[in-house]
Amino acid sequence: MAAPIRFGIMGCADIARKICRAIGLAHNAAVVAVGSRSADKARRFIADNGLPENTHVHGSYEELLEDPAVDAVYVPLPTSLHVQWAVAAAGKGKHVLLEKPPALNAAELDRILEACEVNGVQIMDGTMWMHHPRTAKMRELLSDPDRFGQVKRTNSIFSFNGDSDFLKNDIRVKPDLDGLGALGDAGWYCIRSILWANDYDLPRTAIAFPNPVKNEAGVVLSCDASLHWEDGRVATFHCSFLAHLTMDLTVIGSKGTLQLNDFIVPIEQKSAHFTFASGSCFDDLVDSWTTFPKKHVVSTDLPQEALMVSEFSSLVAAIKESGAKPDHKWPTISRKTQVVLDAVKTSLDSGSKPVQIVF
Amino acid sequence: MAAPIRFGIMGCADIARKICRAIGLAHNAAVVAVGSRSADKARRFIADNGLPENTHVHGSYEELLEDPAVDAVYVPLPTSLHVQWAVAAAGKGKHVLLEKPPALNAAELDRILEACEVNGVQIMDGTMWMHHPRTAKMRELLSDPDRFGQVKRTNSIFSFNGDSDFLKNDIRVKPDLDGLGALGDAGWYCIRSILWANDYDLPRTAIAFPNPVKNEAGVVLSCDASLHWEDGRVATFHCSFLAHLTMDLTVIGSKGTLQLNDFIVPIEQKSAHFTFASGSCFDDLVDSWTTFPKKHVVSTDLPQEALMVSEFSSLVAAIKESGAKPDHKWPTISRKTQVVLDAVKTSLDSGSKPVQIVF
Repeated sequence: MAAPIRFGIMGCADIARKICRAIGLAHNAAVVAVGSRSADKARRFIADNGLPENTHVHGSYEELLEDPAVDAVYVPLPTSLHVQWAVAAAGKGKHVLLEKPPALNAAELDRILEACEVNGVQIMDGTMWMHHPRTAKMRELLSDPDRFGQVKRTNSIFSFNGDSDFLKNDIRVKPDLDGLGALGDAGWYCIRSILWANDYDLPRTAIAFPNPVKNEAGVVLSCDASLHWEDGRVATFHCSFLAHLTMDLTVIGSKGTLQLNDFIVPIEQKSAHFTFASGSCFDDLVDSWTTFPKKHVVSTDLPQEALMVSEFSSLVAAIKESGAKPDHKWPTISRKTQVVLDAVKTSLDSGSKPVQIVF
Repeated sequence: MAAPIRFGIMGCADIARKICRAIGLAHNAAVVAVGSRSADKARRFIADNGLPENTHVHGSYEELLEDPAVDAVYVPLPTSLHVQWAVAAAGKGKHVLLEKPPALNAAELDRILEACEVNGVQIMDGTMWMHHPRTAKMRELLSDPDRFGQVKRTNSIFSFNGDSDFLKNDIRVKPDLDGLGALGDAGWYCIRSILWANDYDLPRTAIAFPNPVKNEAGVVLSCDASLHWEDGRVATFHCSFLAHLTMDLTVIGSKGTLQLNDFIVPIEQKSAHFTFASGSCFDDLVDSWTTFPKKHVVSTDLPQEALMVSEFSSLVAAIKESGAKPDHKWPTISRKTQVVLDAVKTSLDSGSKPVQIVF
């Protein structure tokens, strides 16, 4: 077995604990260094997360990027810092696993992608649910012309109830940190799920709903938008920090319907389900259904974030050991998501004008 | 036990078979007459539906309305005929159970409601799911300030796949019969569910999505709209004759989420379920949920349409036997639904302009 890909964790954000564990769980990855603006904080992170004592401690991100033992960095920094540090990491030949949203806008993302391309390093954004085996199973059904047909309508919702501390102090409500607010955080997942359901065929137009909820600093706390394709397909999404935890994805095709209520974080870690119905009709008196929606259960030994780390590490290993080129599938998906997000943002900021989506 | 309310069925539409059976199942109702434009057709309907041989046969709607044995009429005629025949029925002192949508627009509905008011007869529209005990159980949870809180977001979908015969010949695709198309048929249920979820508090604005799908005659086959309240609440709906059978209702509150996938016609006749989650959070590593959504099962001996007939008949009996006034709850709900539908239609016809909802 090849040597594991050696990760440096760049910043000790809350979410870093989850990915730190995931790197440990992945069979082809290991955490070898932690960098923080404070060496003490890095040391504490290492101790708190049960990392080996010989894990390298770095008191600055620059120092972490100079560490020759580091193959790849995981970057959970606030979005406003992504372009600076992802570009710097690529410049030092480090592969980049970048928390979502990868950038504040597509122009910034393009700077990151270009730096990765130029330096021959892999980039992947941290949209974990993409890597759950449930997602592959659902894709298989959506791709079945007999059982699902053509996609017609997609609806995606991600809301959770930020408490007063969250709504006051979280980086996701700060204009200078994660200035995209609920759109960049929760909305990223919704947009990605819509693109995924439509096999990454980009919509033509985005229309944000009027009157999104913003905080005093102008950061979006709750918003909605619709996406429209040339052929009449429509999608809607709702993202919010102000409503009860909900993560719905409904994809309606000409012949089938896919539904799940926990698409981003499965309710249970080892076993996830979804519902798929095909060819559903009413009985003669329209009193009940002749075909029942079927529940599909998909098990996984590893949580989806470990599978993400594993997939990323495989791509890195191929580059490192076999001289492969960085994979383009994941950054292309990232860019498509960001481009749609940009259009929704522009529509939000222009009072719900329809905005063309240009890739 | 009081004598059952005696129904005349006005027209032998397909849906009349369902309500005919429902009248038979309700403990306080009976079919005593069937009227059709052709006496032969009425006779056939009586035979096909196992009605007693002494059921009165009427070869015209006028004749049915003259029948002194008839307390109430069930009107499954195409929507364009509702105003004429519902007004005529009320004028003859017959109570009116009217298929949905009750009218082509609120102005027509007002003529019907006024005729019923003037003549002291009960009116109710045929939105069956309102009468399922599941609906009452769900309402109880939505009204719980601790478990559900305030409603924030509602999404409702009703689509089914009309076959080529339906799309060519059904009255719901004919501009002169059910000219509201998918909006009047499937959309009626969506709008009603949204109003129900919001405790009949009317939204302020309706915005139809651009580019609804219409047939050559200009009848809507698929459309979407969003509804907006003064306080920031938002709802969306999708109604379609062109996509796989789907009937989703999701109601998100500040503290809870209600979800069901068969709100209009329960998948099973005797046992219906829904999912309710309250206080859902992630575990510490955001790897799974700490509180699982709970499945609630509600049984019913009678199908929802029989419960509707029973509720309507009770109101009629109170008028007939105790001199009660007609109930205003049901016609008010009908009117609110129709007023929202009107606004959506106006927005559709004006290229997605926001339209104020005025009751």
